[in-house]
Amino acid sequence: MDLYECISKRRDTRHFTNEEVPEEVLNKALEAAHAAPSVGLSEPWRFVVVKSEPIKKQIKNVFLDKNEEAKLEITDENQKNRYETFKLEAIEEAPIGIAIFCETQASESFTIGTIGNSNTLEWSCACAIQNLWLSLTEQGYGLGWVSIIDYPKFTEIFDVPKTWKALGYFCIGKPATDYDGQPMLEQIKWKSRAPKPYVKYI
Amino acid sequence: MDLYECISKRRDTRHFTNEEVPEEVLNKALEAAHAAPSVGLSEPWRFVVVKSEPIKKQIKNVFLDKNEEAKLEITDENQKNRYETFKLEAIEEAPIGIAIFCETQASESFTIGTIGNSNTLEWSCACAIQNLWLSLTEQGYGLGWVSIIDYPKFTEIFDVPKTWKALGYFCIGKPATDYDGQPMLEQIKWKSRAPKPYVKYI
Repeated sequence: MDLYECISKRRDTRHFTNEEVPEEVLNKALEAAHAAPSVGLSEPWRFVVVKSEPIKKQIKNVFLDKNEEAKLEITDENQKNRYETFKLEAIEEAPIGIAIFCETQASESFTIGTIGNSNTLEWSCACAIQNLWLSLTEQGYGLGWVSIIDYPKFTEIFDVPKTWKALGYFCIGKPATDYDGQPMLEQIKWKSRAPKPYVKYI
Repeated sequence: MDLYECISKRRDTRHFTNEEVPEEVLNKALEAAHAAPSVGLSEPWRFVVVKSEPIKKQIKNVFLDKNEEAKLEITDENQKNRYETFKLEAIEEAPIGIAIFCETQASESFTIGTIGNSNTLEWSCACAIQNLWLSLTEQGYGLGWVSIIDYPKFTEIFDVPKTWKALGYFCIGKPATDYDGQPMLEQIKWKSRAPKPYVKYI
């Protein structure tokens, strides 16, 4: 698929069919992720593919708790009532999910490019996530990024090194909808996209 | 161009010809960036396109200062000597550059998905940067992410709101080399890519 078709079709998906995700689809997407740029060639991305139902249940609970907190932050009653009707994850329905982590401790004594900002490693992981997302879209699958979680509690679910920092949980499957070709939050009229990016020239 | 060709051809470029970057090329790439996913549809990316030579000079100085600090972090003498020979930016030679910022303050009182981790906004910007990068690659242009900078000093160069957090400076132009189809740090034998991504299944 052409790059731009892929970029424009990519959606943050929260509605999936119950179709399985073939291993070769996932592997292709993970290879695309692994071809992302990384600061100092650190390749800090770490993927934990989740199929276990009990683990999904635990992740769902971490989401539910955090989502209660989120609701408390909404001061406008009308907004809060609307928010409560939104489907913001598909942790238990999506056939698979991936917990994605950033290895914050380098294997070598010096990593080029990390001196200015310690978040550079996470940014590399986000670039890998975008590649993963585009590849899944290209293959007819969808991904939904779940960030409404208590990150430390989420990380505790997994038996991972203390130096791994989570970027979130990513639900993967066949999309049950394309949200009429727009972000779900736009389709449900929560928010509109800006027609153009903010660009200043100097 | 096919997505995978684009993903595999994308390089962190530090060697450019002096060819100009046409306005339509840049606009197409910025539109691709703007089609990235963003937490709660926040679209927090902000682009400042730099053509001004005096501004480039200031950015270069911020890089040079930070790079001196970086050298002090390298304990191995042989490594340090090698590092000093590396070309890690093209701030003054690249015809244009973009300073990319993340707007950390939402325009609305509540942004979906940001409660768990305040870095979610920056991750959205990194996804946009990956789209920008892929589009420039697709159009025959290259991008180099400069992160060896003092981020607060870098931000001071620009007249931007205090709520904008910089992700770095991005050199853009026609690549003078493809580094033999591999990352420059691999070509110069500083580091090798891992043959496969780290994936665990549960």
